[in-house]
Amino acid sequence: MGQRFIQLLEDHPWFEVSWLAASDRSEGKPYAQAARWRLKTAIPERVAKMTMSPATPVGAPKIIFAALDAAIAQEMEPVFAAAGCALVSNSSALRMQKDVPLVIPEVNAEHIPLIETQAWRKASRGFAVTNPNCSTIGLVLALAPLHKRFELETVMAVTMQAVSGAGYPGVASLDILGNVIPYIAKEAEKMEEETQKLLGKLNGAGIVPAPFAMSAQCNRVAVEDGHTESVSIRLKKKAQPEEIIAAWNDFRAEPQTLRLPSAPDQPVMYLHGVDRPQPRLDVESGAGMTTSVGRLRKCNVLDWKFTILSHNTIRGAAGAALLNAELLKAKGYLG
Amino acid sequence: MGQRFIQLLEDHPWFEVSWLAASDRSEGKPYAQAARWRLKTAIPERVAKMTMSPATPVGAPKIIFAALDAAIAQEMEPVFAAAGCALVSNSSALRMQKDVPLVIPEVNAEHIPLIETQAWRKASRGFAVTNPNCSTIGLVLALAPLHKRFELETVMAVTMQAVSGAGYPGVASLDILGNVIPYIAKEAEKMEEETQKLLGKLNGAGIVPAPFAMSAQCNRVAVEDGHTESVSIRLKKKAQPEEIIAAWNDFRAEPQTLRLPSAPDQPVMYLHGVDRPQPRLDVESGAGMTTSVGRLRKCNVLDWKFTILSHNTIRGAAGAALLNAELLKAKGYLG
Amino acid sequence: MGQRFIQLLEDHPWFEVSWLAASDRSEGKPYAQAARWRLKTAIPERVAKMTMSPATPVGAPKIIFAALDAAIAQEMEPVFAAAGCALVSNSSALRMQKDVPLVIPEVNAEHIPLIETQAWRKASRGFAVTNPNCSTIGLVLALAPLHKRFELETVMAVTMQAVSGAGYPGVASLDILGNVIPYIAKEAEKMEEETQKLLGKLNGAGIVPAPFAMSAQCNRVAVEDGHTESVSIRLKKKAQPEEIIAAWNDFRAEPQTLRLPSAPDQPVMYLHGVDRPQPRLDVESGAGMTTSVGRLRKCNVLDWKFTILSHNTIRGAAGAALLNAELLKAKGYLG
Amino acid sequence: MGQRFIQLLEDHPWFEVSWLAASDRSEGKPYAQAARWRLKTAIPERVAKMTMSPATPVGAPKIIFAALDAAIAQEMEPVFAAAGCALVSNSSALRMQKDVPLVIPEVNAEHIPLIETQAWRKASRGFAVTNPNCSTIGLVLALAPLHKRFELETVMAVTMQAVSGAGYPGVASLDILGNVIPYIAKEAEKMEEETQKLLGKLNGAGIVPAPFAMSAQCNRVAVEDGHTESVSIRLKKKAQPEEIIAAWNDFRAEPQTLRLPSAPDQPVMYLHGVDRPQPRLDVESGAGMTTSVGRLRKCNVLDWKFTILSHNTIRGAAGAALLNAELLKAKGYLG
Repeated sequence: MGQRFIQLLEDHPWFEVSWLAASDRSEGKPYAQAARWRLKTAIPERVAKMTMSPATPVGAPKIIFAALDAAIAQEMEPVFAAAGCALVSNSSALRMQKDVPLVIPEVNAEHIPLIETQAWRKASRGFAVTNPNCSTIGLVLALAPLHKRFELETVMAVTMQAVSGAGYPGVASLDILGNVIPYIAKEAEKMEEETQKLLGKLNGAGIVPAPFAMSAQCNRVAVEDGHTESVSIRLKKKAQPEEIIAAWNDFRAEPQTLRLPSAPDQPVMYLHGVDRPQPRLDVESGAGMTTSVGRLRKCNVLDWKFTILSHNTIRGAAGAALLNAELLKAKGYLG
Repeated sequence: MGQRFIQLLEDHPWFEVSWLAASDRSEGKPYAQAARWRLKTAIPERVAKMTMSPATPVGAPKIIFAALDAAIAQEMEPVFAAAGCALVSNSSALRMQKDVPLVIPEVNAEHIPLIETQAWRKASRGFAVTNPNCSTIGLVLALAPLHKRFELETVMAVTMQAVSGAGYPGVASLDILGNVIPYIAKEAEKMEEETQKLLGKLNGAGIVPAPFAMSAQCNRVAVEDGHTESVSIRLKKKAQPEEIIAAWNDFRAEPQTLRLPSAPDQPVMYLHGVDRPQPRLDVESGAGMTTSVGRLRKCNVLDWKFTILSHNTIRGAAGAALLNAELLKAKGYLG
Repeated sequence: MGQRFIQLLEDHPWFEVSWLAASDRSEGKPYAQAARWRLKTAIPERVAKMTMSPATPVGAPKIIFAALDAAIAQEMEPVFAAAGCALVSNSSALRMQKDVPLVIPEVNAEHIPLIETQAWRKASRGFAVTNPNCSTIGLVLALAPLHKRFELETVMAVTMQAVSGAGYPGVASLDILGNVIPYIAKEAEKMEEETQKLLGKLNGAGIVPAPFAMSAQCNRVAVEDGHTESVSIRLKKKAQPEEIIAAWNDFRAEPQTLRLPSAPDQPVMYLHGVDRPQPRLDVESGAGMTTSVGRLRKCNVLDWKFTILSHNTIRGAAGAALLNAELLKAKGYLG
Repeated sequence: MGQRFIQLLEDHPWFEVSWLAASDRSEGKPYAQAARWRLKTAIPERVAKMTMSPATPVGAPKIIFAALDAAIAQEMEPVFAAAGCALVSNSSALRMQKDVPLVIPEVNAEHIPLIETQAWRKASRGFAVTNPNCSTIGLVLALAPLHKRFELETVMAVTMQAVSGAGYPGVASLDILGNVIPYIAKEAEKMEEETQKLLGKLNGAGIVPAPFAMSAQCNRVAVEDGHTESVSIRLKKKAQPEEIIAAWNDFRAEPQTLRLPSAPDQPVMYLHGVDRPQPRLDVESGAGMTTSVGRLRKCNVLDWKFTILSHNTIRGAAGAALLNAELLKAKGYLG
């Protein structure tokens, strides 16, 4: 995940990697040696040579992209925010904390001001903003336009998640070759609570979660990149299929208006092919920032069923944090 | 699928392969040459040498196991039934026909007498019995014990199906390596209507479908054998998790009482491991005839969610037909 | 393979797709409907709407890119060459024909004049040029710089080939998931004879094959794109490892000098990582036109052993033909 | 690998698991909890409940099956041998030690008396016997019958090895899905030196390695079980293909004569199918103890080329050690 940050920040018009930190073992090493680079594009030369710093705010820049395991993040992220950093985090550690915005810029940019309620902000001007879990984000991008127009009443989602979501080394090959693992620790819980916070309303000093019922089941499959989800929903307002498809295809929000560098032209794209979306063919849509939707059909239990696909390490992780940072910058939060 | 029949019938105590037929191209060839044997066990020597017959009832034995594509089955199966054969079919062609029993021996053996309403039966003593689709059968084995004790009100299922369910050559490797395909033609429709027929009631000359609401979504994944399904249900009667698990583990039916040769000791087995069932580890449970269930949890939308796994070419196809034939024999329908 | 042609020709500075033909079944259909597009990039809009023509020279353009099965190519390619077309073929049909150049532009551009000995050329100005098999081309790109400096005496190669080399639908998923297939029809034979023709010398009216001994074994593995090969060689002249690596990294030829649009900056690149090259990480090197080499070590039997990797549908097929066409154009053969 | 031992020893006629030891972390735990059982057959109940002992000879039984990482084995195996145990090891630690027999019972049972030269033997009656690496053993089983009849002059082997050879968790799924890794640490070196020791001659107090030239290259592929190898050989004596095939198929040795419980009826089996052997279809031949060979053809460089397949965790590890123990018992070394 850290590697995706490096990759996406290469040639970024607004941000530049100026400081890298990791666990004690890699401190003092050049990045190229500390990281076992696993991406298809070459490791950026400038970054390859940068020396890993200790993971403390001393000498750290003002904006920190954090891609830490939850346990470590729980301990370290507050330290950086307290020290005055703008912490843009992909970790789950602070996501559900009352005063921390959990943001998808196209969905709930209006939650950003929650920052002002953070004690860190008041003390040091530092703050923390988080993005959702990789399996939540594609779902919520597909749900948001429908919730806005037709109001969600019920959501059920079953995921088939790529192995890259588990980090590296992550899932053992013996566990996933020719297999499905019907369990990812705490994943369904995250999806359920994060979806409701993201689609909730900012109300004074907190977020009132969206009131719809939500249930998720999460599976791991032998896919490299791209989380596929089979979703069923019930809507409060009656909708025709072409209205639903239009709601997806026409969906634009602040990142598109502000022309944020990492914002896709089209956040949600409906594919008409009967067997789409598929990770192999569609995961890189919108440079990995567009959520693909397909197979809209009537559901015998709820109202509608459909399939979504979202790139889990771009839109679902590094790209999510980066777009959050771009939104913060555009709104003047990065000084 | 025909190969699984050959494999399962080798050393069968009651039945012996005495006649093989296929499409025109293989007529007259020895079976070993007509079939491209794809199973791990060796092709039985006696069968390897048998000559492929033309696919007509002339010279055909009294019991026919049919594993044909639906389009061909639609045309040929009635010919055999009309000619006096006991047609035990795995095809979808006749499954939903009003007077044809669709049977899982543990679930609805009491539908068998529907045979007596068939015109073939009256004319020639021939008849047809079918088994469900590979993605239906594991689901219904898991649902039946719950329906009996607690009555189903709603069922939602999302499948992750193995490639062997598509026959050979079936799914192209370029389509499934590292991929999920969210579409299998007519599969969700079959699951929905078959489930309701299987759990329905024989009422005079027909089956009254079970009245619960049912919705399915079907995906293909890169697994060789074993369909995994994420299921959510609502029950009419209140149940405790331990009662549900007991309903599964204690479930026994006629095939077990009659000690049918292919009947598993335990048709449904609950696995307590947090990440089970998995195709790689659990698909061969009960020689491929036991449906594994795991991960029973509360569902925020319906009542309960869980994961099932069933061997799609054994319990879901050849083994299903074979167990039907054994039930018919035990009940005296095979003369 | 035809799809890769379409993809690579989109935005090509010299060539434009103006005519598409295929087998009878697709004649008259728009391309988008005739082809089942399997690539990650979108089908170019202009081409999607083009109508498929009958596969005859009537109305065909002067330059034909041909990606046909060998049996069909054997029959149809001569028809186009006889009709005055410049036939740039990826098929094996004419590759070993005495008067047809088999060309890798970096390796044996000097074989191109063989065109002048073709009867088609004399009669109609039409001609045929071919590129090698996908498993040959990466190997020969790695061998050519060594042959030039140190002279090859013996070559042994074992391939691990991607499924995309078999076309679509190609290899059945049941055959390759979790498997290795140690057989690809005629593949080893092609590699052996093509390698010797490519590294042979134009001598009057024909090619004298390179005289070294060559043996190949070909395997199919569960990889989407990228043929990996374990190679051992014996050289006539003594070489140090750093000289061999320099021979690879410094290798440049006419396509680079002429700045042909599809020519990679570096045709062969040595990777120093102990576990490289790997299809997942390195197949797209040089936009799929660079052959990666790694793991150079002493061989106990011959002199040296190493691993190569080459993109089989870009450098090994469509990109190969395209680079041939660019070379022909630069040399004035395309009028 | 330890799990395969447990699996193969269940119901063994001669041996019974009476003691289990592992690293400090699992000491005192029941085996079912210490091991994360990854095999398709159920964990044997009796063993599941056994408590893990500290890894010291105190309380250890006379025969020890050892499946340790080389570094740990290097330190611990001598301790057990010194304490009087018969150490039957699958580790590489002692394999190349001058006084330790490296044995495949069908190939070099006559190396067993080397035990008598071990200092441990003299001091405490303890001793150590080892089996080869998983990639060596299938190869040597295929080479031995040819070496005996026709004498090997040169051997080249390229492996495509299953992930289970790397233990658990072993290879990360992100590294191997859709990939080939052309590197396994120290693997080629082991294959080269072990092959020569196995086919060498016991000469006084040591083994004189077989004098043929041998070169190996090792690759990891996305296969669960079964190492496939593309092999080329040169023989001193002229051989016809049918003689070579007969040498394989007729090969029998002491384990077959002595009817050792784990000995396969046929140690090497030639498959005539043009695309065999394949891991998916042939790996379980002879309950995983038979090496399959196929595709015998003339080699343009050496004399012959062919493909072999061997089960890497049965014949290549636990089954290898077990067969060694059975041979030792039959020969009276186990008291």
